[in-house]
Amino acid sequence: MKNIRLDISYDGKNYCGFQRQNNGITVQEVLENAIFSATGEKSKIYMSGRTDSGVHAMCQVVNFFSSTTIPVEKIYIVLNHHLPQDIRVMNSLEVLPSFNARKSAKRKTYMYRLYLGKVLSALDIGRVYHQKRKIDLSMLDTACHALIGEHDFSAFVSSHASTSSTIRKIYDCHIDKNGDYINFFVTGNGFLYNMVRILVGTLLDVASGKMTQDYFLSLLIGKSRLDAGDT
Amino acid sequence: MKNIRLDISYDGKNYCGFQRQNNGITVQEVLENAIFSATGEKSKIYMSGRTDSGVHAMCQVVNFFSSTTIPVEKIYIVLNHHLPQDIRVMNSLEVLPSFNARKSAKRKTYMYRLYLGKVLSALDIGRVYHQKRKIDLSMLDTACHALIGEHDFSAFVSSHASTSSTIRKIYDCHIDKNGDYINFFVTGNGFLYNMVRILVGTLLDVASGKMTQDYFLSLLIGKSRLDAGDT
Repeated sequence: MKNIRLDISYDGKNYCGFQRQNNGITVQEVLENAIFSATGEKSKIYMSGRTDSGVHAMCQVVNFFSSTTIPVEKIYIVLNHHLPQDIRVMNSLEVLPSFNARKSAKRKTYMYRLYLGKVLSALDIGRVYHQKRKIDLSMLDTACHALIGEHDFSAFVSSHASTSSTIRKIYDCHIDKNGDYINFFVTGNGFLYNMVRILVGTLLDVASGKMTQDYFLSLLIGKSRLDAGDT
Repeated sequence: MKNIRLDISYDGKNYCGFQRQNNGITVQEVLENAIFSATGEKSKIYMSGRTDSGVHAMCQVVNFFSSTTIPVEKIYIVLNHHLPQDIRVMNSLEVLPSFNARKSAKRKTYMYRLYLGKVLSALDIGRVYHQKRKIDLSMLDTACHALIGEHDFSAFVSSHASTSSTIRKIYDCHIDKNGDYINFFVTGNGFLYNMVRILVGTLLDVASGKMTQDYFLSLLIGKSRLDAGDT
């Protein structure tokens, strides 16, 4: 059995996130079906992140075990033949048996794209969040910096979440501005269910004056269960 | 009657270009229908460029005449209510009666996005051209520079074209490289049918060694009717 790592990209528009579930079609299901079509084996995909509904992936790492005779360096080509165009395998690589995309993931980066102009372009629908409130960029910047470090993110967890620890480490959080577009980047050792969406919503509440910086900081040091912001 | 200028964006994936035609649904038709729904008037749209099938627009200028009582600065909002999400009006503005989006257009810029890596990301399907041949960037750069100026582009016209003059002026042509992505920009006073696609195809032929730089230059100074490259 070989342990095969895949780097995948997908347009999340048509999927209910990555992880298999009963509510709708997921990337995992489509990918496992493509592996079955290509290899004849029912393999289970291990993933580096679940990703929530509608989230896109530029480079998500997954792995699976297989006895296929297809050369590993060609598996991405074969899988792409069995996949819809909105899921692409960018690369395939044999890794050590101990490699597990979820457990081996050291850090994950999420990017959120925001647009501050009055009308969201047709090319950005479903890809960029239209932020209509006036926001203070230096306040946004300060709030992003405050996130860096280890915090208890219990105030930033969706009510659906059931996880033992709500402590996560944020390695980097910053924004890049380009005209009316803002790219928001956050890198951490892991993220709770819906946490990135709630974080972005909360940061925008701070930057638009709806939430004070002090209250935001209190959410990061305390364990307040109060709503932290729009998702 | 007011002369109203609109700046529009659209995702060209689902349209047979901008200009009305019998072969399929076009942006012009959908836009004119939305104007009729909003104002009750059958207005004709004047456009700054036809754009070919599948081409997207980030900011295309059009104009139409109307007696509507809707305040001009609110027309973009009303029209967006009557338009599908893949066509957005970014702005509306009253202009002088003499303004005509086609005749008043001084310059147009086309951007082509190319990807040189081995698999095109799911997020780039339909938006980025996958260039699989190995290309020489400095040759591409040199060929782009050679385009600047006034040339007879008869060798770069699609066979469908029927236009009196094939002389056009190129103000700027350059590439920006970002990792495996190349953005190709060309600005001119006008472009012939399919000319930008053919130009990009020809430049890539030069940069991949399929066409010599000398032959390319001869196409620009002569009136060769030979095929200039892939579209």
